Formats: sequence, C-alpha cells, structure tokens
Amino acid sequence: MGKRNLYLKTIPVEEALDQYMKVLRDLVEPKWETIPVTESLHRVTKSAVYAKYCSPLFNSAAMDGIAVISEHTKGASEVTPVELIRGRDFQIVDTGDPVHPPYDAVIMAEDLMETGDEDRVRIVEAAAPWQHIRPVGEDIVAGEMILPGHHKIRSIDVGVLLSAGITRIEVAARPRVAIFPTGTEIIEPEETPVEGSIIESNSRMFENLAVEQGAIADRFLVIPDDYGKIKEEIEWASQNYDVVLINAGSSAGTEDYTVHVLRELGEVVVHGVSIKPGKPVILAVVNKRPVIGLPGYPVSAYIGFENFVNPVLAMLGDTVCKKNPTVPAVISKRLVSSLKHREYIRVKVGKVGEKLVAAPLARGAGAAMSMVRADGFCVIPQNSEGVEAGETVQVELYRDLSKIENTLVVIGSHDLILDVIADQMPQIHRNMYLSSTHVGSMGGLMALKRREAHLAPTHLLDEKTGVYNISYLKRLFTEPMVLIKGVGRIQGLMVKKGNPLQIKGISDLTRCRFVNRQRGAGTRVLLDYLLKKEGISPEEIHGYDFEAATHMAVAAQVAGEGADVGMGVLSAAKAMDLDFLPVGRESYDFALYREDLQMPLVQAFLEILKSDAFHEKLQELGGYSWEEAGNIIEIEK
Amino acid sequence: MGKRNLYLKTIPVEEALDQYMKVLRDLVEPKWETIPVTESLHRVTKSAVYAKYCSPLFNSAAMDGIAVISEHTKGASEVTPVELIRGRDFQIVDTGDPVHPPYDAVIMAEDLMETGDEDRVRIVEAAAPWQHIRPVGEDIVAGEMILPGHHKIRSIDVGVLLSAGITRIEVAARPRVAIFPTGTEIIEPEETPVEGSIIESNSRMFENLAVEQGAIADRFLVIPDDYGKIKEEIEWASQNYDVVLINAGSSAGTEDYTVHVLRELGEVVVHGVSIKPGKPVILAVVNKRPVIGLPGYPVSAYIGFENFVNPVLAMLGDTVCKKNPTVPAVISKRLVSSLKHREYIRVKVGKVGEKLVAAPLARGAGAAMSMVRADGFCVIPQNSEGVEAGETVQVELYRDLSKIENTLVVIGSHDLILDVIADQMPQIHRNMYLSSTHVGSMGGLMALKRREAHLAPTHLLDEKTGVYNISYLKRLFTEPMVLIKGVGRIQGLMVKKGNPLQIKGISDLTRCRFVNRQRGAGTRVLLDYLLKKEGISPEEIHGYDFEAATHMAVAAQVAGEGADVGMGVLSAAKAMDLDFLPVGRESYDFALYREDLQMPLVQAFLEILKSDAFHEKLQELGGYSWEEAGNIIEIEK
Repeated sequence: MGKRNLYLKTIPVEEALDQYMKVLRDLVEPKWETIPVTESLHRVTKSAVYAKYCSPLFNSAAMDGIAVISEHTKGASEVTPVELIRGRDFQIVDTGDPVHPPYDAVIMAEDLMETGDEDRVRIVEAAAPWQHIRPVGEDIVAGEMILPGHHKIRSIDVGVLLSAGITRIEVAARPRVAIFPTGTEIIEPEETPVEGSIIESNSRMFENLAVEQGAIADRFLVIPDDYGKIKEEIEWASQNYDVVLINAGSSAGTEDYTVHVLRELGEVVVHGVSIKPGKPVILAVVNKRPVIGLPGYPVSAYIGFENFVNPVLAMLGDTVCKKNPTVPAVISKRLVSSLKHREYIRVKVGKVGEKLVAAPLARGAGAAMSMVRADGFCVIPQNSEGVEAGETVQVELYRDLSKIENTLVVIGSHDLILDVIADQMPQIHRNMYLSSTHVGSMGGLMALKRREAHLAPTHLLDEKTGVYNISYLKRLFTEPMVLIKGVGRIQGLMVKKGNPLQIKGISDLTRCRFVNRQRGAGTRVLLDYLLKKEGISPEEIHGYDFEAATHMAVAAQVAGEGADVGMGVLSAAKAMDLDFLPVGRESYDFALYREDLQMPLVQAFLEILKSDAFHEKLQELGGYSWEEAGNIIEIEK
Repeated sequence: MGKRNLYLKTIPVEEALDQYMKVLRDLVEPKWETIPVTESLHRVTKSAVYAKYCSPLFNSAAMDGIAVISEHTKGASEVTPVELIRGRDFQIVDTGDPVHPPYDAVIMAEDLMETGDEDRVRIVEAAAPWQHIRPVGEDIVAGEMILPGHHKIRSIDVGVLLSAGITRIEVAARPRVAIFPTGTEIIEPEETPVEGSIIESNSRMFENLAVEQGAIADRFLVIPDDYGKIKEEIEWASQNYDVVLINAGSSAGTEDYTVHVLRELGEVVVHGVSIKPGKPVILAVVNKRPVIGLPGYPVSAYIGFENFVNPVLAMLGDTVCKKNPTVPAVISKRLVSSLKHREYIRVKVGKVGEKLVAAPLARGAGAAMSMVRADGFCVIPQNSEGVEAGETVQVELYRDLSKIENTLVVIGSHDLILDVIADQMPQIHRNMYLSSTHVGSMGGLMALKRREAHLAPTHLLDEKTGVYNISYLKRLFTEPMVLIKGVGRIQGLMVKKGNPLQIKGISDLTRCRFVNRQRGAGTRVLLDYLLKKEGISPEEIHGYDFEAATHMAVAAQVAGEGADVGMGVLSAAKAMDLDFLPVGRESYDFALYREDLQMPLVQAFLEILKSDAFHEKLQELGGYSWEEAGNIIEIEK
C-alpha cells in the first residue's frame, strides 16, 4: 500500500504556533526600506519620525480679515468705534497669510464696518493680542515626534508627514511569498478538464489572502508529484523568498512528498495540528526561512492560512494579523464537536427579529462553496464537546455585518428561481440581499420554527387533499403564519440525453440506477406518493438511498455516471442538458410568520415576484407558471 | 476689500448629500469591465455568476484508501472479516481520485487490515453504498449561482470561481479621480519653504483616501490662483475623469475662485454645509460629472472627503462607503456645541480600568497633528447643545481598538522624553504603546482625576517646601497615589542664537518680548515663583499673556519673530538651535493611582525608565539627570 502517514500526531493550535514562532523569531525579522511618503499608505514605520519643519511655518492669520496692531484697537466699542487706516493700523490678510510685527492680532472680515473708503475700516470691539493668529508650530513643531515607530501609516498621517517636510520614510518591506501548488492531477483554471482533473484554485486564494495581509505574492506553476522537482523548487524558493507556501501534498496520501522533502531540506517543526478542518498542516524551516505546507481541501487551506501563514506574514511585515470582526450570535442547532480539536464551523448569519442567528452549514473540508455561502465561522474550542442550540456564540464574520443585516434569509427547498431573485434584489433595492440555503422543504420549515430564517420555500404535497403546503403549516406552527404563493413548476424524471434506457414513467424506476433527494425534500415526498400509487416499494429501487441535496445535484449525477435517472424540475434538467419526462405540476411557495410580512426585505421580495423582469426570466428557464406569484394566503388555525 | 462670500448659507449634512446624490443618480452610474478573476479581489460583480463546471468534476474519493463494490463487503464484522482482492473487489484511491462504477464506496486506509499480500486486504465492517465518496457537484453544480450581482469579491470567492471554471468576470470599474490642489502660496513638499509658503499635503491625503475607497487617483500639480487656469483644468478633467476634486479655494477668501468657476462651467448643487470643521464644501456638476470643492484646512478637508467624496466614489464603484468602526466611550469633559452644525471632535481614547474613555483634543480645523494624535472622532449631531462629562458617546475610531487597549495614556506636562519612551515602548514590548497629550502639569493631574489617563507627568514646585509634585498630589487626590520618579531637568531662558538682547536673567524679562506657557503649566508656576522672588509683577512683562502649549512651541516662537525670550528645558532650546540660560533644576515625575502600578503597560514603562538605552538617549538630548528614574514614592495621606 506504499508509505503513508496514517497516524498523524496532532498538537493544539496555540502550541503549534508558539513552537513555530519561537523558532522563527531567532531566524527572521522584518526587512526595512526607505520609500516616498506618498507611497507609504498602510506600511509600518521602523522608528519614530520627527518633524523637519513647523506647521504653520510662521505666525499666520487664522481667518480672512485684517491684521492689526492690538494697541491701536483699544477702546473700540459700539458707542466709540475706532477707525483704522490701512498701512498704519492694518493690512488685509487671508487665512494662512503671514502676520509680522508690529501686527499682533487679526480681526475677522465679518466684524469690520465698511466706510466707503477701501483704505479705512471701523471696528466696534478691541482686538486682544494674538487673537485669530495661528502661532508658528501651533500644529507641528520642528523636532517634535509625528509618528512613533511600529505605526501603521494612515491617509491622515501621509498628509501630516508631508506638512512637516518629511518626504521619505523608513518602513517594513512587504514580505515576499512564493506559492507552489503541487499534484500531478492538478490543472490550471484555463485548461479544459478531463477525467480525474482537479482545477487548481487554492494558490489563487492564498495569493489574495497574502496581499490582504500586506505581502507580495508570487504564484508559481503547478509542480507535479515528483520528489526531485519539489525538492529543487523549495530549495530555490527558500533562498529567494521570505516565506514559501506549498499546497496539497500534506495529507496522508501516497503522493505525500512534501513532508519528506522538508525533513531532508530543513527542519519540520510541526506536522499535524488539532484543528478541523486543517489538520495536516506542516510548519517547517528551510535555509532559515519559513516554509509552510497547507492541506489541499479549500476550507482546510483557508483555515491553515489564517492560523499559521498570517501570523508569520504579520511578524515579517511588523504588523498585526488581519482579523475578521466577531459578533455574538445565537446558534440555532446543537453542535457536537470532539474534544480532540478546535473546530471551525461555517455558519450563515441572519438578523431575525432583533438578534443575530447563526445557522451551521456543511462541515466537510471540501465544501468550498459552503464557505462562500456562509457569513463566517463559529469556532468551537478544543476540549469542548460542542454548544447547545440557543447558546450565544462568537462568530468570526467574513461578510459585512451591514450586508448581513440587510439580507433576507431563505432556508428550505431549492429552486433556480432563488438564484434569480438573489440577483435581482440588489439591482432593484440598493443594499438589500437574499441568501438561500438548501435543506429541503421540511428542513426549511424546521429552520423557520427555530427562527433561523425569514422565509422557507416549500413544496409539500398533502396526499389526502392534493393541496400543497398549507396543511403542513397548520400542523407545524401554532403562531399566525402566511404563505406567499410562488410558482407552479413541473416535476419530472430527468434522464440522460436521448433517453438511452427508454424510461417512460415511475414504473421503469425499478430497472435502473436512481438518485434520490434527501428525506424531507418535497420532491421525495412526491416520489413516495407516486411510488405508493403505483404500488412500488422503495426497496425495489436501486439507489433509493443515494441522496443528493438539490435538483441540480441530482441532475449532475444523471449527467455523469452516478445514476440513470432522478426526479426534479425542468429548469435543472435543461441546465444540465438532460431529457425530461413530466410527472406533474406542483406549488413552490414561501412560508413565513405573519408578523414578518411587513419587513422591507419581504416587501422587496414580493415586488420582485410580481415583476415583469422576473416573469421574463421564468419564461426563459421554462417549466414554470406564475399566475399567483406574490399572492398572500393567511393560514387559518 | 474685494468680493467675498462672507455669509455662506449652510444646509444640514444629510440634506446636502441627498440633494447631490439625487442629481448624480440621473447622470452617472458605475462603469463595468471584464477582468481576470485572479485580479478581482475587492471588486464588485455586475450580475450573478454561474458555475461552468461541477466541483468535484466527477464522483471522487473523499479519503485515502480503497474504492470498493459495496455489495462485496456485506457481512464483514470483527468475527467474520471479509477479504477483498485488488482488481476484483477494490482499487487503491487517494483523496480526489475518481471512483467509477461498479465501485460505489470508499473504505479509509485506517480501517484496512493488512494481509502481507499487497493485493489482498481484510475488512471488519461492511461499506455502505456511497460512503466516503464526494459525488459530482457536491460542492458546486454546473449552472448553479456562485456569486450574486453587486457582491464584493473576497479571497475565498476567487478560489471558488476558478474551481467552477470561471476565469474572467465582469466587475465595476474603479472610479478615476482627478485631484487638483490650488493656491499661489502652496508649494510641493520637496521644495524648500520660504516666507508665506504653505506645504501642500491635502491632495496626498485625498489620493490615499480615494485608494482606500477603491478608486484610482491622479493628483495633479498645484494650480495657482488664476481664474482662467482653474477653469481650463476643471473643464478638461471633467471630460476625462469620473470625479474631480479641487482643494482649497472653497473658503471665503479673496482667492476663492472655485465656486465662481463651477457656477460658470456647470451647476453648484450645494455650497456650504452645517458641519464643523468642513463648512465651505462645494458640491457641483460639470459636464455631467461630480466636481467637489474641499476646504483647505486639513481636518475640514478630511471630514469633507469622508462625508461627501466617499459616498460618490461608493456609488460609482457599486460598493458601500468605507466606514471606520464605532465604539461606545465615556466622554471625560463636557463638550458644548452649537445647534447650528454637526460637529466632529477629535478624541484620544484610552482604556482606563474596564471602560473606554474619550478625551477631547484641540478643535481647530488647522490642527492636523491633533488628528494624528487622536484615535477617532466623537460626532455631536446638529440640533444638540453638546454632551455632559460622563455621558457615553459613540466614537468613530480610525486607530485599531486592539492598539488603543494596549496603549499607556499619558496626559500632562510635555517633555521630549515622552517621545523617546513612546518610540522605545513597542520596540521592547511588541504591541504595547504610549500616547501623550500635552496640557501642562495641572491639566494632567485634572485628567488623572477624571480617569482619562493612566499617568500624569508633572513638575509642580511647592513654593513653601521647594519640593516638587508630592504636595500637589496630597492636596488633589483622596485615593492612594504613587509618584514614579522621572528625570531631573534644567529649566532656563531660551534666547535667540548669540543672545542679541544680552539677556542675563529673570530681571531682564521686563525689557523684551516674552512668550509664556499656559496657566497650570509647571514652567509657568516656576516663572511666577522666580518673578515673585525678584519682585517683578506680571504686568511688567510684555507677552506674559502670549501663551504657547509646549516647550517646543515656546522655542519655535523665540526662533521665529514672535518673541525674544521664553522659558523651557535645554532639550527644546537645543532642538531649535537657541541659546540657553539655566535658572534651575526641577523634578519631572509621573503621578498615578497606586492600583494602576501593576498594569503591564506601567511595568513596561518602568522598565524603560531604568534602561541603559533610555539613559543614553537622555545623555544625547542633554540637560537631564536620571539617578532616581523609575523609583516609586508612595504618597502618604
């Protein structure tokens, strides 16, 4: 079976980082460079910067008006105005003009009475010495410290530095990072994938994360799984870069060369961290430079970068780790975790009522899309068994809180029209968004009950009445509910192009490989109803237990080699270029609490349901009807 | 007196912005461009982006191990292990490898028992169909929406887009901004200033603020105050840029051409906003493009940019305004404001005890350095008369909260050694900082009483005992206090190089122009003591009421033409190249509450006071003694 690192011994995150930083601190430090102040935004000063000039450079007028000799204004009042003569008693000055002795005060233009003669003015109040004069150095005195060392330069600092005569400044150089993807099966995004291909994308995420942490990143071409080649590249990069990152090759696979190469070239300080996802991180040193191996799964890769690469870049750039903001949120479901590791759970955050609710999403390390859909991470510490539903947790957000607060949270059955509405929402209402999570109809109603969602899209057939959705809402909720009518859509069997197995209807499902939807999905309820009608038992269907989470995922299996047939909507079949055999029309509607109907986000949603732009899009997708879209049905108790 | 816009009618901020945005919305909108996904970080999508490929592209192994036919594993248990034969029952797979029919499950390498024969393994548990297989499209299904429109692209999005086969993406173009400084007296930072020069720096602050808001900024050379020239440049820029900024020339001075030029070229929508600082903002439209005139004072310029330029750039870039975070803080002093405008007060924020305390700084629009020293703004709304001391206010922070919480807040008498310690602090203790505000000895003790500061540097002479500081602490505080001994330093008279007026001592002050320190400054207490000893009354001294806030500011007046003589420390005289006549040695110490002595920040401060590096620096500055530096004196009640 080849050599495998099956039993990776892991250590806690803090311990791993401490051990590594301790080794690095003796080997590396920030490099410094002198650059123009005009290009120094967000860079970090090496040492204190002192003003070269005063600002203002001279005693100057703080107002538009006249510079006067204060002695000459004595006694002026409403009843005894004093007349001043230009040249003898005053000079005209604008804000910023120098004021020289014997002039020692400024009177504002607003406080002057015109005399008809441009060279004479009258005043009704004496000027106090030094009034409305900005003394030399009032703002900045030459020799004064403007910025301390280790200070991150802001836009306002750039202005003040220049005012004080500083045009060049010594700052920490941006650390240079070399990024190497590895793996024989890996292809570049531009290439056309073939059987077995995996599109390389982590390195591009790293590149951007590094830039966000202030580094300069060079991403190199994919290195195939070739021991000699990997060794050669790492050795070269460790001599030419401040940090080297190697992606993949750090899991326990047969192609796991990285850790062996690193052991040969230098020292592996840590291999394996008690973190999930992200366990097989390698923290090494080669030629006195940090070399970090990051796992191949995208979520693991992200978490590994955040926990271990960011601190190293921060140290080299003499700055602090870029941190996402954290907010308290109520967790909607019990989360069980292992004592063995710190776990990062992706959560969708929604503002439901007055509080933020965090709903956990998929936990797989490969589910990159769930990271995009999520709003942040809930971190369960090592040595904790998890959190109970309703507990308040801290969520590390990577989406703007202001956007989260303006997002309609939709959880339930999946349909492509949710994507369409999500796209139209911010086009019509600036700063209003829709996010959808796909857990099936029943899953959506449960989320609604837990107050995780504003809307639950649902298409659940009541076998007795033949009416969709309403009876489920009556049964599940005690609160006043409403149903927003959505679309009618055609459900059917999706089969491969040309229908090679000549499938004609439900009765043919017993003779081919099926892909089902998960329990609680409306489509599965419909299937079960149809099977019952035909007198077919689930055991007769090969693949009844093979579940996919959305219409599109079912279509993908049929388009691939996972299954011959699945059930779903026409739009999904069309999107995957499959043939489609209609089995019936159903109602895809939206359940919500009546009290939420007046929310601006819900009103915007209704507006879209009734809009021409939306109906045109439905026409284009095919298989939909929308006569009732946007109608409100009150659920009577 | 020339034409002046003396009586600017102002309108509230929101109203001004609304009026302007309403006009702009009909004229301008984001431009769109298609760029490589790899360069799309922080850009905003035009419309929804749909996946081109599934991810994974095929049914693939989720673990390293073997792909099996689940049927062949049935019945396996601890007592009845099943032996599987390579080629017939299993294939070796690594994570990510494709799994084809008839293989329909993966068993992890860890769960295999070796047999000695590489081609045979034993298992003790049956494999469920589809276990450890990532189905095609599990993460992303082709045709599925990856990102909605109007979404700001993050590092994780870049990775997912590429995984889904998207390599180019349509995003909002970065708005292009032309920045014009104006003014005949304005010079570039590289030039050597002469009488009347003002170093141009606002445009560089704008440039960086624009970049932070996602724009591309081109800063042009200073335009002199020439009506024709300004008109020509604005007209050209309005045809070639998305936004045009003109700096200065928008106050009510004689050189105020901008508003006239803009009226001639286009429409001035707003001139004058009820905001302080920042009133004379001009919001105009020329050739259907936004043209904004910003005031010349740095603080006004910053506030004008934040309130009016950022929203315009956000609209053009289809993004949201960059916002500084706000935190609640207790205001330490009563702040009176006018009902007439919204006021931005710079505040220094410190964590004193468990709460954040905001101490107001200088309010002048010209005090750019106070903006650098401040940590943020406290905004007093229009129609409010201000806030009372002890009230909680929202502070808009432009310094990291984590840094604020790790900053030793020092308020009181000024000495150059504070700059030295501020510089050494983060060098010795990573992420520890010192900030100092200079309000004189008595001002510092008052700040300490209000719990705005951790330490108050003070040098107050007790005339009766000749002992510094201790009697003041006894008198002013009822709580247990301590005094950290600082340095001995020489006070003296600073006179121009060569001492042209032949000043020999205090008695000569009656025959020259003096510059004094503010009431409550230790130096002024010392002066008053010396004057009394000599029998001189303050009225006899010309300039006794001319006050400067620091030793350095006094030195700057003596170096310039504001005064002939002032009192201060040797290091300030040396920094300004003045002659120095010693009058006595004094104790410059640090007062604090005894309970704060154990704070890590105070301990780090003590460490520096006792360090060789600090003593070497004192030697270099001259005029200091440090035998007692870092000693603790308990103040007995």
